[in-house]
Amino acid sequence: MPLEIPDVVIDRLPVYARALAALERSGREVVSSQELGTQLGVTPAQIRKDLSYFGRFGKQGRGYNVRRLMEELHQILGLDRKWTMVVVGVGQLGRAVLSYGGFAPQGFRIIEAFDADPAVIGQKVDDLIVKPVEQIRESLAGRPVDIGIVATPAAAAQKVIDALVECGVRAILNYAPIAAHVPAHVRVKDIDPVLSLQSMTFYLKNGAPPAGTA
Amino acid sequence: MPLEIPDVVIDRLPVYARALAALERSGREVVSSQELGTQLGVTPAQIRKDLSYFGRFGKQGRGYNVRRLMEELHQILGLDRKWTMVVVGVGQLGRAVLSYGGFAPQGFRIIEAFDADPAVIGQKVDDLIVKPVEQIRESLAGRPVDIGIVATPAAAAQKVIDALVECGVRAILNYAPIAAHVPAHVRVKDIDPVLSLQSMTFYLKNGAPPAGTA
Repeated sequence: MPLEIPDVVIDRLPVYARALAALERSGREVVSSQELGTQLGVTPAQIRKDLSYFGRFGKQGRGYNVRRLMEELHQILGLDRKWTMVVVGVGQLGRAVLSYGGFAPQGFRIIEAFDADPAVIGQKVDDLIVKPVEQIRESLAGRPVDIGIVATPAAAAQKVIDALVECGVRAILNYAPIAAHVPAHVRVKDIDPVLSLQSMTFYLKNGAPPAGTA
Repeated sequence: MPLEIPDVVIDRLPVYARALAALERSGREVVSSQELGTQLGVTPAQIRKDLSYFGRFGKQGRGYNVRRLMEELHQILGLDRKWTMVVVGVGQLGRAVLSYGGFAPQGFRIIEAFDADPAVIGQKVDDLIVKPVEQIRESLAGRPVDIGIVATPAAAAQKVIDALVECGVRAILNYAPIAAHVPAHVRVKDIDPVLSLQSMTFYLKNGAPPAGTA
């Protein structure tokens, strides 16, 4: 697989996979790039170009086989296997993350939760006993963890990320409003609602022709 | 201002503005694109190119005036004014959104909260009394609302988004795992942690040279 695939293309593939899964559940066998594009607010050409990085999926004029394309995307994205995660920060946001029903069905399992607050440590949240944040290293020693979810206050986040990276975590889902520093082999995805709002206000203010779903 | 600015550029401006605000708080007056790039995990060329869409900010070899560039970015993004928001869906996620301390200091004020659950309606959450979701239209009649935050289950989300759009909302922050359909004049930003995870697993699986913060 070529490694020069733009990040924005990789970011769109899960969106395609999700739409295909919905089509598959509804019993559809074939879908055109036109229809998929309309559903997702992107052009058919965009979909065809994105998929072309990974080979040929559809026959000209015949559309895509829904199940086959979905399975191919799952395989490309690594969604055909299970991934382990830990959550650091069990405030209101961390609790929402821990109780979120959308991770497990997609193969993402949370195996530990950590917090710094003595009042929270020891609590049972969604079947996990919250452990002290100082025990990240010893608790994860010898246990492979794929992904760290950081839901701490901004001031605590970088230290937590450092600890997770030391434990071999190679992907960080970062809810803290900081620009995380990580070694080159580690990926970070920021989930910061303020940044998302701030890029929409540009369009609210300037009234630029919007692209719909961004 | 040219309107053909790529969305990815607009998405990066709030990140620059956030970093500049931190520098300003720490008393820095000048910063180079090199240093800003190192801090944010992007190339200095990227920063200079992004800013070039909006005019000339720095003098070659002199770096950027921190406060001036921050203020210009605020003005470009519309962060020099206040924006009103409503939250629909007051489950665990909606509560986290309502109690999140990061919106107000950035000028984003939540003025109403709605839910469909009779047990939740009437509750006071962060100074707001939760109203019935069926009252969105009547409650917002004649009151300009800029942004709708959708934190409902997937099945309820599109109907809620339709109601918000009818009320004149032109920007939706969508936490529900659906591809929202909106008219062309409305922006949607999806916050879906599963989609973020699924684009990181591509790199976990393929071991591609990562770009750091994505």
